[in-house]
Amino acid sequence: MARDKLDGETITQALLKVPEWTLAEEGCAISRTFEFRSFNEAFGFMTRVALAAEKMDHHPEWSNVYKTVDIQLSTHDAGGLTELDFKLAEKIDRLSGH
Amino acid sequence: MARDKLDGETITQALLKVPEWTLAEEGCAISRTFEFRSFNEAFGFMTRVALAAEKMDHHPEWSNVYKTVDIQLSTHDAGGLTELDFKLAEKIDRLSGH
Repeated sequence: MARDKLDGETITQALLKVPEWTLAEEGCAISRTFEFRSFNEAFGFMTRVALAAEKMDHHPEWSNVYKTVDIQLSTHDAGGLTELDFKLAEKIDRLSGH
Repeated sequence: MARDKLDGETITQALLKVPEWTLAEEGCAISRTFEFRSFNEAFGFMTRVALAAEKMDHHPEWSNVYKTVDIQLSTHDAGGLTELDFKLAEKIDRLSGH
């Protein structure tokens, strides 16, 4: 199921599809930092991610400082990474245009 | 000028207008946490703040985890708090409906 916690090997495989994302040391989350040309672009990106996240009912932990957006994905209910996190990461990568 | 660093006494006075905001220990920033009923409401609030911030050309440092939004305001060019931070804080308070 999409919300089942993934094992280490599955995570290693899943990371190959989103190579720009970094696995947290504990293996419970993945993160990526995005840089844009302006706040306008950064927040525009966040809005597109917010709509996608709401549709998936799976939300990022994220912060924004001017042109920079830091995103961390994890599934708290599962206590680690699930298929949903990697699906959202792929979607975010596409939305970022990076 | 709106972007001049404020002294301690002026900051104390300015905080009276935004009593829900907390002064950082070093006195260089103010912060407030907002809780909403859903991600939809939290991100709707962020969108309104983003438009206000862009109009003022003064942007928050902020993070969002599901229904919670943490905001920190500071004026980096001035190396501390300025009138702009307090103006934005007042605006954010009004936009939050809290």
